[in-house]
Amino acid sequence: MMKTFRVSPAQRDIFNKMLALDDFAVFIHRSPDGDALGSGAALVKALRGMGKTAQLVCSDEVPDRLAFITDGSRDLSLRGEPSVVVSLDVATPALIGDRYSAYADKVDFCIDHHYTNTMYAAHTIVMPRASSTGEVLYRLFFASGIEIDNYLAEKLYCAVTSDTGCFRYNNVTPAVHRMAADLVSHGLDTAWINRRIFEMASIERLRLESRVAELTQLYENGRVALSYLTLEDMHALKADETDTDGLVSIPRRIDSVMLSAFIRQTSDGQVRASLRSECDLNVAEIAAKFGGGGHARAAGCSLGTDISSAVDTMIDTLRLEWRKYVDSHSG
Amino acid sequence: MMKTFRVSPAQRDIFNKMLALDDFAVFIHRSPDGDALGSGAALVKALRGMGKTAQLVCSDEVPDRLAFITDGSRDLSLRGEPSVVVSLDVATPALIGDRYSAYADKVDFCIDHHYTNTMYAAHTIVMPRASSTGEVLYRLFFASGIEIDNYLAEKLYCAVTSDTGCFRYNNVTPAVHRMAADLVSHGLDTAWINRRIFEMASIERLRLESRVAELTQLYENGRVALSYLTLEDMHALKADETDTDGLVSIPRRIDSVMLSAFIRQTSDGQVRASLRSECDLNVAEIAAKFGGGGHARAAGCSLGTDISSAVDTMIDTLRLEWRKYVDSHSG
Repeated sequence: MMKTFRVSPAQRDIFNKMLALDDFAVFIHRSPDGDALGSGAALVKALRGMGKTAQLVCSDEVPDRLAFITDGSRDLSLRGEPSVVVSLDVATPALIGDRYSAYADKVDFCIDHHYTNTMYAAHTIVMPRASSTGEVLYRLFFASGIEIDNYLAEKLYCAVTSDTGCFRYNNVTPAVHRMAADLVSHGLDTAWINRRIFEMASIERLRLESRVAELTQLYENGRVALSYLTLEDMHALKADETDTDGLVSIPRRIDSVMLSAFIRQTSDGQVRASLRSECDLNVAEIAAKFGGGGHARAAGCSLGTDISSAVDTMIDTLRLEWRKYVDSHSG
Repeated sequence: MMKTFRVSPAQRDIFNKMLALDDFAVFIHRSPDGDALGSGAALVKALRGMGKTAQLVCSDEVPDRLAFITDGSRDLSLRGEPSVVVSLDVATPALIGDRYSAYADKVDFCIDHHYTNTMYAAHTIVMPRASSTGEVLYRLFFASGIEIDNYLAEKLYCAVTSDTGCFRYNNVTPAVHRMAADLVSHGLDTAWINRRIFEMASIERLRLESRVAELTQLYENGRVALSYLTLEDMHALKADETDTDGLVSIPRRIDSVMLSAFIRQTSDGQVRASLRSECDLNVAEIAAKFGGGGHARAAGCSLGTDISSAVDTMIDTLRLEWRKYVDSHSG
């Protein structure tokens, strides 16, 4: 069982070298999510528990619904000049954000789980098979004998539930559930935590989702779905860019859909399309036709500035690609 | 660790007595959900694996998006006359459904996790602290030496993820996560399973959600929310009663909301209200004013046949109750 919580000797050495230092600034990525905030809060608390000075730093404000993870703090600005610069859940230096770009090439220790990590830090601990940076920290705490108390358990739980979509995705290994069993044994209010991370929304967000669902249209016997959002709608609904995350998942919820797109105008007037596939039709290849890219099942591209013609173009393209796919898989 | 997968000697004896018999009909509750279907499919397969004859029976059709749990079967009608009648995840005999009410007082063995089980069967195994009937079966299989193969692992996973809201609710104990770790180790496609159970929806359902979100109104500085759905809207959106489950969770998603209601007309023209509380304001007491009831945080009541006046009445009531609650908690 311990095998799956394994940390390599080199990784443990790096972590212990870090723990021997003092006066830390722990930078998390801009647009902080539950994994960045949860693992950040846990690492800072663990360091303070060892008598160290440590601060959590983020270039962006903490969203209100996630501020419980940072014990109410929404402003994570850097105070003073730290001796040790740590980055957590930050795959590339640019993700530290423009505001703290001066620190991007001065990172002493990086702890992460993204396989895309560019190894920009002096010392890097990256576990590309871990579900979350929270899971990486859990393993490191375990290897270094740092006891998980109720506080650390809650923060690490926030991290892992956040990056696994509440234990939903395929990055959930048996080790993730075993770790969750340990964390939950501290008596966490998991319903309350998961409600804040996954369900809570502003009224503006709710109205946006409603509009995107309303505008969803089906084609090709329900196999192709497309929806969109104009800047005009966003202004009318008093929503901003921060409310638009994940709207792409609305058209793809429909049970018959195999190929879907969500198109929106960004605040600078550009039109962006996000494409999703529920089968082996490769949407990265469709995105590439418009100069975009991504993965086989999730890709994106830009489509100029006219949303009406972008929507028409994308409907035609998706219908054509779907018919080609069906033809090549029939007979 | 085994302690938490405990089965009492009496429960094990009942289960083993059942396993010694043959020719089973396993009845699950009407309006079957993932727990009923998953535990039902698992029990039938385990019995067949022991060389027994067993059939899964449900008075209602299996919803299309859940038919993968029954390997594609949507019609679970009883065939022939079984020797042994088992009920699974059925708290009261009425939940077997009118179609098979003749069997409701002939249940030989009942396996369940609802603390409200009325003990109607000749032999009952109920584990009221288990998250799901799937968890009860997992424990019984474990106690009786029935090996969990990939098939059983997938079905039991469907059961437990379904009744825990994808490991979201407070019924998720450490034992649930340890069980999930074991089940997931069989190589399940958890993302695909959870997408079907939690995300997939008909286009009609998507439009209904959209309408309910659009009609959501806030009162008392955003602390009180109410939405509703008329039969006229349901007809216009081509939706039926089976599409309305859980719509009550839409107004309560809003971050500022402490007290919420969802009101709808049922197909027989009655108006039903569902009430939710996110604080210690007791909505069962509000429901009781209208002859309804429920729990402190989730309750319901009937409000006659005029939805327009029902909505007005409920808005006034909730605003008044909220103000009384605030007054009693200030100063």
